[in-house]
Amino acid sequence: MILDNEIMTLSEELKDITITRRRNLHHHPESAWTEFRTAAFVADTLSDLGYEVQTGKQVIAESAMTGVPKAIILAEHMKRAMNQGANPKWVNKMGGGKTGVLGIFKFKKSGPTVALRFDMDANEIIEAQTDQHRPCKEGFTSLNKGFMHACGHDGHTSVGLAVAEILIKLKDELAGTIKLIFQPAEEGVRGAKAMAEQGIVDDVDYILGAHLGLQMKKTGVLACHITGFLATSKFDAEFTGLPAHAGAAPETGKNALLAASCATLNLHAIPRHSEGSSRINVGILNAGSGRNVIPANALLKLETRGATNNINQYMVAEAQKVIKTAAMMYGVDVKITEMGSAAGGNTSLELADKLSQTAKRLGIFEEIVPTCNFGASEDFSYFMERVQKHGGQAAYLMIGANLAAGHHDSYFDFDETALDLATKVISTSAIDLLNKVK
Amino acid sequence: MILDNEIMTLSEELKDITITRRRNLHHHPESAWTEFRTAAFVADTLSDLGYEVQTGKQVIAESAMTGVPKAIILAEHMKRAMNQGANPKWVNKMGGGKTGVLGIFKFKKSGPTVALRFDMDANEIIEAQTDQHRPCKEGFTSLNKGFMHACGHDGHTSVGLAVAEILIKLKDELAGTIKLIFQPAEEGVRGAKAMAEQGIVDDVDYILGAHLGLQMKKTGVLACHITGFLATSKFDAEFTGLPAHAGAAPETGKNALLAASCATLNLHAIPRHSEGSSRINVGILNAGSGRNVIPANALLKLETRGATNNINQYMVAEAQKVIKTAAMMYGVDVKITEMGSAAGGNTSLELADKLSQTAKRLGIFEEIVPTCNFGASEDFSYFMERVQKHGGQAAYLMIGANLAAGHHDSYFDFDETALDLATKVISTSAIDLLNKVK
Amino acid sequence: MILDNEIMTLSEELKDITITRRRNLHHHPESAWTEFRTAAFVADTLSDLGYEVQTGKQVIAESAMTGVPKAIILAEHMKRAMNQGANPKWVNKMGGGKTGVLGIFKFKKSGPTVALRFDMDANEIIEAQTDQHRPCKEGFTSLNKGFMHACGHDGHTSVGLAVAEILIKLKDELAGTIKLIFQPAEEGVRGAKAMAEQGIVDDVDYILGAHLGLQMKKTGVLACHITGFLATSKFDAEFTGLPAHAGAAPETGKNALLAASCATLNLHAIPRHSEGSSRINVGILNAGSGRNVIPANALLKLETRGATNNINQYMVAEAQKVIKTAAMMYGVDVKITEMGSAAGGNTSLELADKLSQTAKRLGIFEEIVPTCNFGASEDFSYFMERVQKHGGQAAYLMIGANLAAGHHDSYFDFDETALDLATKVISTSAIDLLNKVK
Amino acid sequence: MILDNEIMTLSEELKDITITRRRNLHHHPESAWTEFRTAAFVADTLSDLGYEVQTGKQVIAESAMTGVPKAIILAEHMKRAMNQGANPKWVNKMGGGKTGVLGIFKFKKSGPTVALRFDMDANEIIEAQTDQHRPCKEGFTSLNKGFMHACGHDGHTSVGLAVAEILIKLKDELAGTIKLIFQPAEEGVRGAKAMAEQGIVDDVDYILGAHLGLQMKKTGVLACHITGFLATSKFDAEFTGLPAHAGAAPETGKNALLAASCATLNLHAIPRHSEGSSRINVGILNAGSGRNVIPANALLKLETRGATNNINQYMVAEAQKVIKTAAMMYGVDVKITEMGSAAGGNTSLELADKLSQTAKRLGIFEEIVPTCNFGASEDFSYFMERVQKHGGQAAYLMIGANLAAGHHDSYFDFDETALDLATKVISTSAIDLLNKVK
Repeated sequence: MILDNEIMTLSEELKDITITRRRNLHHHPESAWTEFRTAAFVADTLSDLGYEVQTGKQVIAESAMTGVPKAIILAEHMKRAMNQGANPKWVNKMGGGKTGVLGIFKFKKSGPTVALRFDMDANEIIEAQTDQHRPCKEGFTSLNKGFMHACGHDGHTSVGLAVAEILIKLKDELAGTIKLIFQPAEEGVRGAKAMAEQGIVDDVDYILGAHLGLQMKKTGVLACHITGFLATSKFDAEFTGLPAHAGAAPETGKNALLAASCATLNLHAIPRHSEGSSRINVGILNAGSGRNVIPANALLKLETRGATNNINQYMVAEAQKVIKTAAMMYGVDVKITEMGSAAGGNTSLELADKLSQTAKRLGIFEEIVPTCNFGASEDFSYFMERVQKHGGQAAYLMIGANLAAGHHDSYFDFDETALDLATKVISTSAIDLLNKVK
Repeated sequence: MILDNEIMTLSEELKDITITRRRNLHHHPESAWTEFRTAAFVADTLSDLGYEVQTGKQVIAESAMTGVPKAIILAEHMKRAMNQGANPKWVNKMGGGKTGVLGIFKFKKSGPTVALRFDMDANEIIEAQTDQHRPCKEGFTSLNKGFMHACGHDGHTSVGLAVAEILIKLKDELAGTIKLIFQPAEEGVRGAKAMAEQGIVDDVDYILGAHLGLQMKKTGVLACHITGFLATSKFDAEFTGLPAHAGAAPETGKNALLAASCATLNLHAIPRHSEGSSRINVGILNAGSGRNVIPANALLKLETRGATNNINQYMVAEAQKVIKTAAMMYGVDVKITEMGSAAGGNTSLELADKLSQTAKRLGIFEEIVPTCNFGASEDFSYFMERVQKHGGQAAYLMIGANLAAGHHDSYFDFDETALDLATKVISTSAIDLLNKVK
Repeated sequence: MILDNEIMTLSEELKDITITRRRNLHHHPESAWTEFRTAAFVADTLSDLGYEVQTGKQVIAESAMTGVPKAIILAEHMKRAMNQGANPKWVNKMGGGKTGVLGIFKFKKSGPTVALRFDMDANEIIEAQTDQHRPCKEGFTSLNKGFMHACGHDGHTSVGLAVAEILIKLKDELAGTIKLIFQPAEEGVRGAKAMAEQGIVDDVDYILGAHLGLQMKKTGVLACHITGFLATSKFDAEFTGLPAHAGAAPETGKNALLAASCATLNLHAIPRHSEGSSRINVGILNAGSGRNVIPANALLKLETRGATNNINQYMVAEAQKVIKTAAMMYGVDVKITEMGSAAGGNTSLELADKLSQTAKRLGIFEEIVPTCNFGASEDFSYFMERVQKHGGQAAYLMIGANLAAGHHDSYFDFDETALDLATKVISTSAIDLLNKVK
Repeated sequence: MILDNEIMTLSEELKDITITRRRNLHHHPESAWTEFRTAAFVADTLSDLGYEVQTGKQVIAESAMTGVPKAIILAEHMKRAMNQGANPKWVNKMGGGKTGVLGIFKFKKSGPTVALRFDMDANEIIEAQTDQHRPCKEGFTSLNKGFMHACGHDGHTSVGLAVAEILIKLKDELAGTIKLIFQPAEEGVRGAKAMAEQGIVDDVDYILGAHLGLQMKKTGVLACHITGFLATSKFDAEFTGLPAHAGAAPETGKNALLAASCATLNLHAIPRHSEGSSRINVGILNAGSGRNVIPANALLKLETRGATNNINQYMVAEAQKVIKTAAMMYGVDVKITEMGSAAGGNTSLELADKLSQTAKRLGIFEEIVPTCNFGASEDFSYFMERVQKHGGQAAYLMIGANLAAGHHDSYFDFDETALDLATKVISTSAIDLLNKVK
């Protein structure tokens, strides 16, 4: 049963509240595994709408969590969340950073299980504080210094809540089961694996993910067939040497900074792979304690990527070899810690086609791009892999939006009219799948 | 006139107060250009003893100050000093970090001008907080987190105050003029140049400096003829590139971290110099903003040294070339800022011999080492150079002390019985010079 | 008109002579721009068959030649060629290394112009001299030390001569014009550009190139639709510094070896490009004159590649920047010389399909692979680009062959039964095109 | 007994023959361990003068030989030597490169044993062939391409023969025993160790070595007290990886060139040593086989030095660690081969003073420099160490000479009038020692 007109009307009614919610989230950004306020807000809203709400260890496999902040940091952020209005009822369930939320609603008629995934976390970026940056000018810039929604997840979450409401409003017309996944820690690609390994998508027939902007930098453009999710691994390398006075006894030191510099250069020189794209980035290097001391400590934060899991594994193996031998070269110790990962993956072609048909039927997009190369990593790939392995289908929508500045820029901002387009296309796609519209 | 017995007695009377003062200073460490509390305490004490006290712009040439903290930091530290009991009368004269203190006393009889220099600043080190560290066990560990007296300047300053008192007590027996220089910012070799360029030693016939421990790691050992002061230059290099998404568009970034790593490796590969010792150290490298972002910023803190000013200049020129070309290689900008420097220099042989004679006569040292190679940098060399240029003589005493751990170590501590030995040898040497004892 | 049966018969009659010719060429390998004996042999054979033969400056644009050996080397190789039986009549036309040969035959009936391209040059590799290497065991191993046919061009040339003979034997049945291009200097991608710029393919409607083995390492396999020709640039960088005694005065040298090493590492660290494959290789580094001398000279031989001309240009620009700044870093001069290049390029899809049809019809291949990613560079791309620009079509065949060892290995050898398959498919394809078989 | 006048006269009579011999040797340079013609000429001359002559395994300990050329090279050079007039009687004793020669003469009166050491080998340098180079202009330039006397050893050897003759002419006036050591392979510091370990100086009371030019670049200047012989180690590192096509499969190669470049940069970054001078030089790097092949081979020729044996050992240990870990980093194998070494060492002060007295008495030098810092390595240090260990004394003379170009330069040439000065001072010094002149 096609409900396009109803959806259009409902979405437009929700337009303003969606923008308001997005700005509220933008105002209170929370980074990976600390989305206490955001998740509590989502849980409250879903609960009010009538969804069964799961959170904490119900939806997060602790064994699959990586890159979790220390307990003291988690405690500080929990406290901040509650000071900023988070419902303690939910926050208390999210101990250890288990900030995922799952809303489930079974419609009366039987039908397929459809999952929609929205990511909630912010970036660790200091937001621009000038009037040329709209969030600043209009008063919804980050209250949490050092954190910023610079990737649009504030938009994703508020669209997810709008979709949640539309589905409930139309519940009598719908079949099957809807699962709304609000995921933490997409930045650093950490959250999806922990939710997928908890088994929450094992019964899912169709799963959809989406992103605002990225390659589609114009409002009104849409891509349904996304290729080139790069597999990725994130890790830290901590080098520990021996300090020494740089003037009086340089030969007695063990130089961790030089080991790290040597590693960095040689990491970037790992050979390209003939079977597809590879990437390496040492994003952060912090080393040394004083100008006149042979540096005894160094920390590298790096990531590898590959067009396939194999290529990424090649990069990981080479990178770890480089790091370990650079440490040996300078006589220092090194400890490598895994901080996150995402699989590579491919959209299910049949589902991508179906989404294109739906989007064309709606007639709200100026352009529907046939295929789009993601060229980066998204841990949605873990959900894709898990659903596809169980016989389901997975696809990802890239929803165009005019941008003020690129993703992860301190001036990032997007055209909020894209929120309505996103709400419409995601709601309609979900309903088409639930109701088996061909 | 020889006053050895009187000096011995006076010094022993001051032993306990000297240790108490040292521990008080250890408890309240202040780093370069922020020694407000320390300097105010010195000024109060000298003033009480009857010295003419100069501070602030009277004794510091602003144009020769390098590596001064930002105004906001200076303000914070001023406030902290006053909260910790500093006399605002003095602190208010020390605006802009001009924390040097000069005590002058003209004795009735005419005679030579003798200067003694004591350094006051602490290191930027987090002090060990375990019971195996005596300052911690006995309750005088650093109250100012991130700062620590790990180089013995707390001892130098308290010895200076004991000497000041002995000279006053014996003032009727003395000739000439005494200048007691309490210098800030020896770490980073910044303070001496600024005081010397203000002209405060231009009328000095003899100047003495001293250090506890270092090459003489045993209480009861003394060296009067110190060679091998290494000339040194300190500078920072700030690289600025362009960020980019490390997965989606790595080729559009300008990688400041790679530029800095490349510079670091090649800095350490600058050829050795055939004419004498050279040194290079990149002590600190901080770069990057996020694991998945091509790093757009990097900061190197480095230093060069050389057995002569020429060798150091060679190192500086090569180092700056390496830094600039590494920046060009990666298409990033770089700004190099000078942060401090010390001249090379040599002890005046005649004065060193005289000090040896004095020390032997006292009979309080177990061993007097003929010569000692400093092998590091000390900005006392600026005073040496200035005094020698005006026809005076300069020498430096290395006063042995048993150590708990090496200088600049978070467990650094020294045998406090060395303070009395230092007080005695410095007082006697000064008096011999003032009174022209042969 | 389909002449498949006639072609099959003729090719089988030529099988033995083709193998004999291949072994004769293998026995006398000649590297880029010195293929005097090979080219003279081709010219003699084509001439005997009745082709109009062009060589030397008729077919090579001197201005587009790169990486030509010095005159003295050319002279030595000319002499060697004549000592090994080359016809001086041809050799004398090939002055300056202009060793290309073009055979032209206009059939009586009008029709399209079809060009076939065969490459003739050997590699600069010392051939294995053990009995496990068939060319050695059977007595046709390289007579010219340091040179070896390790890429199968000996096979390509002998197949070209067999095709030439088949076409002449069937001349009365054929229409249009055939142009047989025997190209020098494919290794180092230098010859095609110089022949294409002379205009010899400007009138061509269809051009075919082919390679034995490479990705198709099994006799009986064929690929007609080849993608992924990588654009490439080859260049040399010569660093010139100042020598010095490494013990007595290291600081007075200018170290070309360190500049080259620094360049090498940073060249390999040039960021990957998000739009497609890139490559960099420093294949050769020779530097220094003596162990105890600061090295004053260094030579790098390197190449870049890219999936598109744009990506290759990005790599070239970055590489040249790295080389120049590494030289500046070490105070040495550097001279960069271009040594060859190939365009990227794509097979004409329509022609590739037509070749697939022809190959299927013949029924001599066990497997016809739909598409094959070349993943390397071939200067056939210059002919492709030129023909396509003038409105013609271009395609490339990868003809499978079992290999004894990989291309460019000193044990390289291939299954000679592939020569007959190559002769058949190339002859038939050419005749289909000349006779417009659909 | 002082024989100064006799020595002066005899030396002047030998002036022309000494120059003639030097030019003959210059015309026929032979590098380390292949000095067959030179050594045979020395042996013939000493033998004719009445010396007992030892050569081959009598004077060279095979176990202590390093960096010996391969048998085929030795055979070629032996043949060349005989073609150039070497006496086969001697050459046949020098199998395996044992080209040292020892001449012994016991004078009738008893007295001390005095050894004089002269080195014979040439450099591996292509001599300049222009008329501005005197050896070329006057027809005695190198006949052996690639070899050149660019360090003055041709002069040393001819001086040694003149001294040999003077001592014999004055034999009736002399006491004790003279040992004339003509050493091979000083370049690369290989020969002295092999002769010293054979025990030839174990009975020596005084040993003298000498060098023309070097730090004393003016004829008429002399230094007798030489300090700063740097200990040194020479070694080769051969890296072996795996080749691969740089375009088609770069990830399958193991890159020996990158390993070598990485090693090189990090070798030069080994920390300076606080106890004295250190040096490192990678003098030669040869790697790779073709521009488009991942390089599977690389050869480094390097050396370390140190002011003391300890410092040199520190450099060697660090260098080997860097080389091995760089190989591991790139997954390649590496083989390190020792190629030579020299001890550090110090002149015996008493003997140096005695030589100064002798030289002053002669009155033939314009200037006698008090001390001279060698700042490089000389394997004469092995003889010094051995003689000093057995209770003898050792010293080294630096005999000034005007130079056309620096040592190891292809235009190197020296003022031949220095040969007479050298003959005089060495003869007189030897005779003073034999005859115990005080």
